[in-house]
Amino acid sequence: MDIGFIGLGEMGSAMAGNALKAGHTVRVWNRSAGRTKALAEQGASIVDTPEQAFSGEAVFSMLADDAALRAVLIDGGLLKQAPKGLVHVNMATISAAFSAELTALHAQHGVAYVAAPVLGRPDVAAAGKLNILAAGASDAIDRVQPVFDAIGQKTWRVGDTPQHANVLKLAANFMLASAIETFGEAAALVSGHGIDAHAFLDIITSTLFPGPVYQGYGTMIAERRYEPALFKARLGLKDVRLAMAAADAVDTPLPVASLLRDNLIDAVAHGGGDKDFAVLGEVAARRAGR
Amino acid sequence: MDIGFIGLGEMGSAMAGNALKAGHTVRVWNRSAGRTKALAEQGASIVDTPEQAFSGEAVFSMLADDAALRAVLIDGGLLKQAPKGLVHVNMATISAAFSAELTALHAQHGVAYVAAPVLGRPDVAAAGKLNILAAGASDAIDRVQPVFDAIGQKTWRVGDTPQHANVLKLAANFMLASAIETFGEAAALVSGHGIDAHAFLDIITSTLFPGPVYQGYGTMIAERRYEPALFKARLGLKDVRLAMAAADAVDTPLPVASLLRDNLIDAVAHGGGDKDFAVLGEVAARRAGR
Amino acid sequence: MDIGFIGLGEMGSAMAGNALKAGHTVRVWNRSAGRTKALAEQGASIVDTPEQAFSGEAVFSMLADDAALRAVLIDGGLLKQAPKGLVHVNMATISAAFSAELTALHAQHGVAYVAAPVLGRPDVAAAGKLNILAAGASDAIDRVQPVFDAIGQKTWRVGDTPQHANVLKLAANFMLASAIETFGEAAALVSGHGIDAHAFLDIITSTLFPGPVYQGYGTMIAERRYEPALFKARLGLKDVRLAMAAADAVDTPLPVASLLRDNLIDAVAHGGGDKDFAVLGEVAARRAGR
Amino acid sequence: MDIGFIGLGEMGSAMAGNALKAGHTVRVWNRSAGRTKALAEQGASIVDTPEQAFSGEAVFSMLADDAALRAVLIDGGLLKQAPKGLVHVNMATISAAFSAELTALHAQHGVAYVAAPVLGRPDVAAAGKLNILAAGASDAIDRVQPVFDAIGQKTWRVGDTPQHANVLKLAANFMLASAIETFGEAAALVSGHGIDAHAFLDIITSTLFPGPVYQGYGTMIAERRYEPALFKARLGLKDVRLAMAAADAVDTPLPVASLLRDNLIDAVAHGGGDKDFAVLGEVAARRAGR
Repeated sequence: MDIGFIGLGEMGSAMAGNALKAGHTVRVWNRSAGRTKALAEQGASIVDTPEQAFSGEAVFSMLADDAALRAVLIDGGLLKQAPKGLVHVNMATISAAFSAELTALHAQHGVAYVAAPVLGRPDVAAAGKLNILAAGASDAIDRVQPVFDAIGQKTWRVGDTPQHANVLKLAANFMLASAIETFGEAAALVSGHGIDAHAFLDIITSTLFPGPVYQGYGTMIAERRYEPALFKARLGLKDVRLAMAAADAVDTPLPVASLLRDNLIDAVAHGGGDKDFAVLGEVAARRAGR
Repeated sequence: MDIGFIGLGEMGSAMAGNALKAGHTVRVWNRSAGRTKALAEQGASIVDTPEQAFSGEAVFSMLADDAALRAVLIDGGLLKQAPKGLVHVNMATISAAFSAELTALHAQHGVAYVAAPVLGRPDVAAAGKLNILAAGASDAIDRVQPVFDAIGQKTWRVGDTPQHANVLKLAANFMLASAIETFGEAAALVSGHGIDAHAFLDIITSTLFPGPVYQGYGTMIAERRYEPALFKARLGLKDVRLAMAAADAVDTPLPVASLLRDNLIDAVAHGGGDKDFAVLGEVAARRAGR
Repeated sequence: MDIGFIGLGEMGSAMAGNALKAGHTVRVWNRSAGRTKALAEQGASIVDTPEQAFSGEAVFSMLADDAALRAVLIDGGLLKQAPKGLVHVNMATISAAFSAELTALHAQHGVAYVAAPVLGRPDVAAAGKLNILAAGASDAIDRVQPVFDAIGQKTWRVGDTPQHANVLKLAANFMLASAIETFGEAAALVSGHGIDAHAFLDIITSTLFPGPVYQGYGTMIAERRYEPALFKARLGLKDVRLAMAAADAVDTPLPVASLLRDNLIDAVAHGGGDKDFAVLGEVAARRAGR
Repeated sequence: MDIGFIGLGEMGSAMAGNALKAGHTVRVWNRSAGRTKALAEQGASIVDTPEQAFSGEAVFSMLADDAALRAVLIDGGLLKQAPKGLVHVNMATISAAFSAELTALHAQHGVAYVAAPVLGRPDVAAAGKLNILAAGASDAIDRVQPVFDAIGQKTWRVGDTPQHANVLKLAANFMLASAIETFGEAAALVSGHGIDAHAFLDIITSTLFPGPVYQGYGTMIAERRYEPALFKARLGLKDVRLAMAAADAVDTPLPVASLLRDNLIDAVAHGGGDKDFAVLGEVAARRAGR
């Protein structure tokens, strides 16, 4: 396919790279030069304006947050000048409300809008093993499926209402955050009793909670080592806030999320914003005076 | 081995049955006649007093809670008259503090004390697939290992301080409760947006959270079906309270546990005490007015 | 003074009325005709456009929220065309962040900006007994003090940084919400034990907690009567959210606010959004199954 | 009256002193010699055994907690040997459950039992200005009213079910704790914005929250000065736990209490157990990294 790619952070550049490897033609644009050089070496054509990237058969965006996307897409006029019939696939984790707003705006400008946030951190993106949660018009998703196949290990089609994909992504991240928090508290409890947190981790990951989440974050907490960050606490906090906003929209109390928010703020207030999400475990330990 | 077994609820009778199947000689005693008949048919000898069961090479107990064990073991004088050198294996989920008290009392009476709470519900117990968390004197555990092998799929030796096994069990159940609560909240969030909770469950169990816990409890929540109870909310609440008590002992805040306690009380107040632990999901839905 | 008044809800019209009574010349504008008639009878001149009200010596605004003020003031171009040297006194409860943004914007347009949110409900406003928290340039506050004297019983000058007044107002409302919540929980506790909540209320308001807040909200809770609403739960939720946003800005966990937010959402989800703020007590009772 | 007094901590000795001043005959007993000397100088007769104090027309007890009272009253056999017709007035803050147990036990031994916990710290006790919450048989309370009049400024008769007085006392202390916590959080919020917490305190105590509670605890928090302790955080935590236990008994969620418990544990874990209850404000500040 002939695609554009906007937003080349760690996640975006890994995705664009995998699209290139799969033989797609990729025009990339990024606000800062940053990672464009490496992609150029992989065969991407670097374009000077977002408009040049926002063209072809489809354009993928992976910007930091609502504000960044709004700046370039709406305030910057990108959407207004887009060629009719283009498919815009937004893979970033944005708010459900903004995703709904984008759905209406794209329809207005004759551009197909697909929300396709992903599960997986940069290492998973680099390996092309992301899980993609895609929602939007079925035919639009069909058209970009070849790129999804290059980027992810599986595409979960979750209906034709784009923001549903965003809600699902936020709900998943909320569960992730809760698992980290809970292991952190449990680790503080067992180590308070003089039990090695690794022993506890070994038991629970071998019995109740298999899989990489508890194993990975649990190990960081048991070792009290939060750097290098695979996923920053600051970003985790952003996602918890978005989950709370999505809950606000449907009058749903989310008490675990509220607690996560406060604890992540505690982490940030103690200099942990750029540490790994697992730093929630450090909050639990600190509150116990350890 | 020649063993006694005290406490024949669903868990206890399944364990005793597996010990019998493995060829051990088992004397069983229960306050009420209840399940003794079935065990007698399997070859157990039914004894009339707890003293007759509290003899042989080792005795296993699986009573409901601290109070039940205290009543028969201490107030009832069972421990005082126990033959020296006997090994008492307490498999029930009791408080860490009582376990520590029992450690001292057993030492005083020349009885070896092993704390060996288990992970697994009655169906797992029936299949002989429990995970046993055992702590106490190494040689005492060695002696009862043949029975553990009949009862469980694996024995986790977690040191020589008996209450450590109890703390680990409580920490594990706390994590279980949090996973249920969090999925319940997430399900309320996604279904509030008109997304089928089954679809969400399918995604997260295929990606972040494999394994039977999220799958099993998640299905009950997605179906909003909380009966028959595999593990009652009332018992889950008991365990959360014990985890909080264990945290009290080492000055460790456990905010997720606090929240679980309140929500489980909410469940009980709405008639859910005898429903499955998954009923936490119903609390989340009810709070959202659904 | 010659003043304009924008936003004539229950609060705004009571304030404007008191300004009239004190002899000030008042031009009023409201989006809907609503309460303008009564004010006209009191001597106000009704103007057709917000621009006509946004003139004279000072203009007071009391709009519903950030969005309403942004719509008329910024998007509607009101600020741009304002006469240089005008003082704009914003008495509404808006976010601290928006207040900071307004400070910069007003400076840019040569308009003095005073943030002056108030403590007190409509009945207090009608009586001219509000407490006014005013922040901004000292000379600007001096100029509008005669109007403050007509509207409130006391003006608290809280410095020259306008958003400080907003933060203080939000912190006060947060404390109010917590007092209601806590009495609601305590009432559920004592009535669960068969004790009349009125008896409890009588004791605490005569000892620890004198003053109208506990008395007023406590009586509604003890009577389980939440209508008519003196201050709607929906507005209380808005303010709690603004307090949380203000806390976000300075990385401050606010766990009681988090809990209030969830309980107010619970209230709204059960049809209580337009009931009195005291409906938090009903959430506490409902969660206890009563 | 001819009365006995058991338990001479700061509160107890102040009460006994006021009974003496009012002309009552007081026999005092304390486990340690401690404060008996000062009371002897005031005219009390010091007795060697609790039995000698547990006699006369009425006996008042003010021991530290359930365990201390249980040890002397039940385990020590004091109640069994008590003269029939004696009135026992227990003024300590004990659990509602133990108070109910004591009601039954006293009835069994022909001793009248009055639960009469008090509102007020040692300075208030010394001034004879306590508020006494009294429950029990009306004629028993009538008989001891002259002593209550010497000890307190007012006796609140709250019915004939003794534990109701305990529930009310716990509910009041719970509200107190929440007021402190909430002001602590609000102070962290405003000071995060660079606003002096004293200014905030001045506003709210002059408007929404008059009275000594907010003023007293608020000043300590605004000054971040938590010593000397007028009421220790450790004791506050004890009372919050008792409130939670009382809520457990009637299946009532008490989420604010849960949060207070965690924050008080945090305080204790950071060496604040013997600091003033106001140290909750320090937890809020610390969590914000200040």
